[in-house]
Amino acid sequence: MDNDDKTIFTIKPYIKKAHFYETDQMGIIHHSNYIRWFEEARADFMEQIGHGYKKIAEKGIDFPILDVSCEYKSMVRFGDCVQINMSISELKNSRMTVNYVITDADTGELRTTGKTQHCFYNNIKMKPVSLKKELPEVYEVFDSLCS
Amino acid sequence: MDNDDKTIFTIKPYIKKAHFYETDQMGIIHHSNYIRWFEEARADFMEQIGHGYKKIAEKGIDFPILDVSCEYKSMVRFGDCVQINMSISELKNSRMTVNYVITDADTGELRTTGKTQHCFYNNIKMKPVSLKKELPEVYEVFDSLCS
Amino acid sequence: MDNDDKTIFTIKPYIKKAHFYETDQMGIIHHSNYIRWFEEARADFMEQIGHGYKKIAEKGIDFPILDVSCEYKSMVRFGDCVQINMSISELKNSRMTVNYVITDADTGELRTTGKTQHCFYNNIKMKPVSLKKELPEVYEVFDSLCS
Amino acid sequence: MDNDDKTIFTIKPYIKKAHFYETDQMGIIHHSNYIRWFEEARADFMEQIGHGYKKIAEKGIDFPILDVSCEYKSMVRFGDCVQINMSISELKNSRMTVNYVITDADTGELRTTGKTQHCFYNNIKMKPVSLKKELPEVYEVFDSLCS
Repeated sequence: MDNDDKTIFTIKPYIKKAHFYETDQMGIIHHSNYIRWFEEARADFMEQIGHGYKKIAEKGIDFPILDVSCEYKSMVRFGDCVQINMSISELKNSRMTVNYVITDADTGELRTTGKTQHCFYNNIKMKPVSLKKELPEVYEVFDSLCS
Repeated sequence: MDNDDKTIFTIKPYIKKAHFYETDQMGIIHHSNYIRWFEEARADFMEQIGHGYKKIAEKGIDFPILDVSCEYKSMVRFGDCVQINMSISELKNSRMTVNYVITDADTGELRTTGKTQHCFYNNIKMKPVSLKKELPEVYEVFDSLCS
Repeated sequence: MDNDDKTIFTIKPYIKKAHFYETDQMGIIHHSNYIRWFEEARADFMEQIGHGYKKIAEKGIDFPILDVSCEYKSMVRFGDCVQINMSISELKNSRMTVNYVITDADTGELRTTGKTQHCFYNNIKMKPVSLKKELPEVYEVFDSLCS
Repeated sequence: MDNDDKTIFTIKPYIKKAHFYETDQMGIIHHSNYIRWFEEARADFMEQIGHGYKKIAEKGIDFPILDVSCEYKSMVRFGDCVQINMSISELKNSRMTVNYVITDADTGELRTTGKTQHCFYNNIKMKPVSLKKELPEVYEVFDSLCS
């Protein structure tokens, strides 16, 4: 019966078109931009689950990045459309790990994979917190989507 | 005798080395970056006159940009050193206009000229203010350097 | 009868969502990013008229920026959707002026206006060219949309 | 006697001042910028060893990034000076790993650590190459500095 209360989210991948100003003189997207695209995908994900940034921020909660890693498999060029599939690979009370797979939206070719680790931080209390305690409804969604 | 009280500032031009990540696929510095370099030059200018950003910000004063313009004369490439000469071309109680001339630091060749217009804003009072009243010591320096 | 040959383009405004990484410590979108958004709008415009960047670049033609200006009317914040209306305000054989009006996509409130001036350049011949001669089909579309 | 021919390089750390436009709305330097700072440090390193980017590029050699990782230890703010100590931690014929330690230039406090892995690529042959064969004089310097 419990399941009736729960919204089942089907997360749509984030679609992004590479901009001219994101290229470098090698004629490809500069490698630093993928880190920014991961952030775009996270913001989109949060909106899809009904807890967009503004809503979370109002509660004083933030997800600061502890570390990031990115593997470059093949190049993205200006005008290419990429698809970013984001997933939560690990969820603990106080931190989570998010994975990203970037593929060409047209050909499906693998472009980049990446990972970010976040803690849960209360900007008002100014300390790391348990998401499970502070925002159980968000924790639950994360948990249901954790693979 | 008044002049004895005044510090005479000789402003050194701001030197900047163009970074790889600032290039685009045409093999030149992307045009949006010059707007950022103007900002770098302003920050450096404020430090040279002894009123760096932090000091001004502590007093609640900010210099928001009302408009910017930039003319591209010739191209800057990765690794080039440029020299940015900044000057205040107009100063009023409530706003000022700042001019920039970017030249190649080695050859002196003209690269870019630009202009930003700023108002003086009090972040605490949350309204535009007279710099002459709020920070007369800064206004005076600006005035002495206004050409 | 001539008109039958012509495609009439209705240009849709470009919609853009402001990203977190585009903010600065004042809590607003950093002013340099609007220059980049203008570029996004131009790329979208060129695709809408059937002459996307890649197609034009294959012919060796480029539209380098001669100058840019931007007036900041009100602030855009992270997560805001903006609408960019782009128009060609002046068209000559060898150059054009493009205008931009950025409004909040939800409220219609005016955010920013701007202008870029471009010449037409042949990367193979390495010199400015007449668009009317080099790409008459593009010139004609520009001309039909010039207001 | 061989040793007499060799220049011993003492690599100076790269000093960088954080710019306003590098901040985000949390009031700190946006995490994506450290990836760019790593690149600044590499360019500076290459110049210090007498093989700046242009010189290497003329020979058709490039050091594309295979992967990057970055751990955020504490925050950098606008105006802070950081010191980036770069070192080569692994060197093979066809690839290398570069390490970065970013500290506050004034207090020495640890800010960020990171790592990039690069292959050696010949842009003319359009394939990965052995640096030892293609640019032995650069390989040797890298090797002498590899820790």
